Amino acid sequence: MDRLRQIIEESDTTAGRVFDLSIQALIVLSLITFSIETLPDLSPVTQKWLRWIEVGTVFIFTLEYIARFIVAERKVAFVTSFFGVIDLLSILPFYISTGVDLRSIRAFRMLRLFRIFKLVRYSKAIRRFHRALLIAREELILYLFVTFILLYLASVGIYYFEHQAQPETFASVFHSLWWAVATLTTVGYGDVYPVTVGGRVFTFGVLLVGLGVVSVPAGLVASALSKARELEDKEGKDRPILTEESHGNG
Amino acid sequence: MDRLRQIIEESDTTAGRVFDLSIQALIVLSLITFSIETLPDLSPVTQKWLRWIEVGTVFIFTLEYIARFIVAERKVAFVTSFFGVIDLLSILPFYISTGVDLRSIRAFRMLRLFRIFKLVRYSKAIRRFHRALLIAREELILYLFVTFILLYLASVGIYYFEHQAQPETFASVFHSLWWAVATLTTVGYGDVYPVTVGGRVFTFGVLLVGLGVVSVPAGLVASALSKARELEDKEGKDRPILTEESHGNG
Amino acid sequence: MDRLRQIIEESDTTAGRVFDLSIQALIVLSLITFSIETLPDLSPVTQKWLRWIEVGTVFIFTLEYIARFIVAERKVAFVTSFFGVIDLLSILPFYISTGVDLRSIRAFRMLRLFRIFKLVRYSKAIRRFHRALLIAREELILYLFVTFILLYLASVGIYYFEHQAQPETFASVFHSLWWAVATLTTVGYGDVYPVTVGGRVFTFGVLLVGLGVVSVPAGLVASALSKARELEDKEGKDRPILTEESHGNG
Amino acid sequence: MDRLRQIIEESDTTAGRVFDLSIQALIVLSLITFSIETLPDLSPVTQKWLRWIEVGTVFIFTLEYIARFIVAERKVAFVTSFFGVIDLLSILPFYISTGVDLRSIRAFRMLRLFRIFKLVRYSKAIRRFHRALLIAREELILYLFVTFILLYLASVGIYYFEHQAQPETFASVFHSLWWAVATLTTVGYGDVYPVTVGGRVFTFGVLLVGLGVVSVPAGLVASALSKARELEDKEGKDRPILTEESHGNG
Repeated sequence: MDRLRQIIEESDTTAGRVFDLSIQALIVLSLITFSIETLPDLSPVTQKWLRWIEVGTVFIFTLEYIARFIVAERKVAFVTSFFGVIDLLSILPFYISTGVDLRSIRAFRMLRLFRIFKLVRYSKAIRRFHRALLIAREELILYLFVTFILLYLASVGIYYFEHQAQPETFASVFHSLWWAVATLTTVGYGDVYPVTVGGRVFTFGVLLVGLGVVSVPAGLVASALSKARELEDKEGKDRPILTEESHGNG
Repeated sequence: MDRLRQIIEESDTTAGRVFDLSIQALIVLSLITFSIETLPDLSPVTQKWLRWIEVGTVFIFTLEYIARFIVAERKVAFVTSFFGVIDLLSILPFYISTGVDLRSIRAFRMLRLFRIFKLVRYSKAIRRFHRALLIAREELILYLFVTFILLYLASVGIYYFEHQAQPETFASVFHSLWWAVATLTTVGYGDVYPVTVGGRVFTFGVLLVGLGVVSVPAGLVASALSKARELEDKEGKDRPILTEESHGNG
Repeated sequence: MDRLRQIIEESDTTAGRVFDLSIQALIVLSLITFSIETLPDLSPVTQKWLRWIEVGTVFIFTLEYIARFIVAERKVAFVTSFFGVIDLLSILPFYISTGVDLRSIRAFRMLRLFRIFKLVRYSKAIRRFHRALLIAREELILYLFVTFILLYLASVGIYYFEHQAQPETFASVFHSLWWAVATLTTVGYGDVYPVTVGGRVFTFGVLLVGLGVVSVPAGLVASALSKARELEDKEGKDRPILTEESHGNG
Repeated sequence: MDRLRQIIEESDTTAGRVFDLSIQALIVLSLITFSIETLPDLSPVTQKWLRWIEVGTVFIFTLEYIARFIVAERKVAFVTSFFGVIDLLSILPFYISTGVDLRSIRAFRMLRLFRIFKLVRYSKAIRRFHRALLIAREELILYLFVTFILLYLASVGIYYFEHQAQPETFASVFHSLWWAVATLTTVGYGDVYPVTVGGRVFTFGVLLVGLGVVSVPAGLVASALSKARELEDKEGKDRPILTEESHGNG
């Protein structure tokens, strides 16, 4: 029992590491088959194969869920925890869709996507990213606030400049918002763009301000990531250094 | 009277906080209705609803303006202050448009957008953003200067390369400026682009220089924002640290 | 004579500052008229006005050139200096184009653009930008080198993937280079893009690497700019601090 | 023999520097002729010239390979080293394609591109870039991981929103992935874009998150590059400083 718990909940031992990697590989396989199923004109043979992979995947995920439930010390806490819910959501759609009629399968199938969050459990990297987001949280919220105001003002502005010239494309402020998003993120699909002189001058002004706003979060996250790494390095080193210092003091 | 002033002008107390959040919610509601009004083919029922929301919003904003005027210690200073003017501009269009004939309403309606600046009053985040802009002010002006020169040179250059091949799109230096804006900001709508070999090689050169110029302000603002946060943290900590130090010295 | 030199060569006095700003305003005016001349369908009245502004501008620039020549202590050094040559190139095209026949005017007219470099003389900001470029010089050259290799490999790669499917657009490696430039700078005009599965997967890979390379110089310049400002601040403060320190030591 | 080794393997002497630069120039020439060969409708004269340049280039590269083999102290180590293999791959296609029939030439010709890696041998700059990548390695892998998850979720999401409205463009999750790549990198060719309200709102959300993720690596590489430069400067200065300090201590 303790052995099983060690394998499932920790990744220090070889067996635990193999278990983690196997589940991760299975998640990726599951996501790939999910994608392949959306391809049009699949041959019956392929569809049968995909079905078998799906059955196998769900079977193993079910075993994993049961095993996690058994080794969990506090059963209720596990079932209601974030990963407990995700693990259940990963297998539930399969069982429900085989029970009920075929038409509602489509909607449930999408729930299988929740499996991607299972990947997070094993990922050390995500933790650092999460930490970086915490460091730059205030700035990122600030940026979001400024971005929303900027997008709104840009939408209203372009609506007044372009509405008469292109009544279809810039039909309302909401239609203009699509232009504002595509422009300020510099994606620029080319499906909507200003044609009047006023609209173009306005676009110029908006971009001049916008470039100094919209690309800022990337810089914030980048510097927060390096700060998060520094903090991790510090935590790892802190104790020995303190020991050395106490030696020096003693 | 003092109680009212506390609620309106400060946000330390619960009542003051509720007041602030209510006004903010009202501003956002007002902006949303403003946007919905631009939608084509609105039903008469919706239009009536929008009208009532508008009347209610202006009524509350008017009360707010009067209350602020009453509690203000220096009446003239309030009326002529930035937020005093904004508050007045937020309600004035409504009263003027009901007094005069209907045709001029459209132009006045846009003035209602000034309400968005009312949001700034309550926003602590905007203050930090403002501070960051002050820190990076010189660099941002420098960037603006270099950007303008670059845009101008790019426009003239592409005009000479593409004018003959595409006399409509690159009709003058001003027409070429639109291309320069869309290209150097990397938006690239795809409505104007060079087709000659010379124009393409020139575009390559311009982008090579331009990418090192146009995206710089984002980096400047990002680093200024972290500096602004550091300064805030320092100001918050400064006094206790000094006290501790004076204790240590004493 | 000394008074004149002070006005022309320095900008500490009020007269010197007025002189500098007047010349700058004239340069900007000259660039604007240059742009307006490219507009199609100009009325004869406008053309006459533009001509008069051009004559006036060149007249003042000629006076400035003569004045600078007179006050210069080393005449030859001035004439062969960067700004001496630029000042001459700004007025020469006018005199040559009035002497010779009309057909060659067009080519010479473009030389008037050199006036933009006259702006640099007065700009303190450009000096900091220049300093920042010096600090990040090595990294920028490195980036240029990597960018060129990346662009070349991307061009050859996409040529092999897309040549058969789109023999017109991806006719040769040079044609593919245009796609590589538009894609890696994320401009994406939409006039050339891959359509084969191989070409799209390749584009994905190139962008994954490219985004980590092409946007780097902006970050380099941004950090170099703040470093340049720090250095300037240091130079301004250095002496008084040293004095204080020597006081403390004495 | 020692003299030859010095010229080929080191670049301290004038002869060694000339040798290095000549080989580099030859590589660039070889890459240019490679590109020119892909141009359609080449005249027989040009083709003959290109052929002669190719023969000359391979001849010199063969001499270089033999020379490097002769001066190498450990022959086997050289042949199996990265640059040994690259050097061989640069000349091998030529010899094989002249021995066998003409049809397989095309595939082999592409192998000549490996010559670009020969450039790396001489480049000091690449070493710093390599160092910067090592510093930011963990963060870059993290970014890659997050980017892949984001791209996948974006693809599945847009597939559900747009599949019915545009069954051709968003035919499967894999087709949607192309949209996700073009959008999140902000290239935005304009060949695929959402048209439904749901798809556009989803795109907005994805871009809001995506901009904070996809442009991060550039910031990471930029800061790693400056750190790499600092480390280089430190290594260069370390010894004299230590000496000075030991003087001070002595």
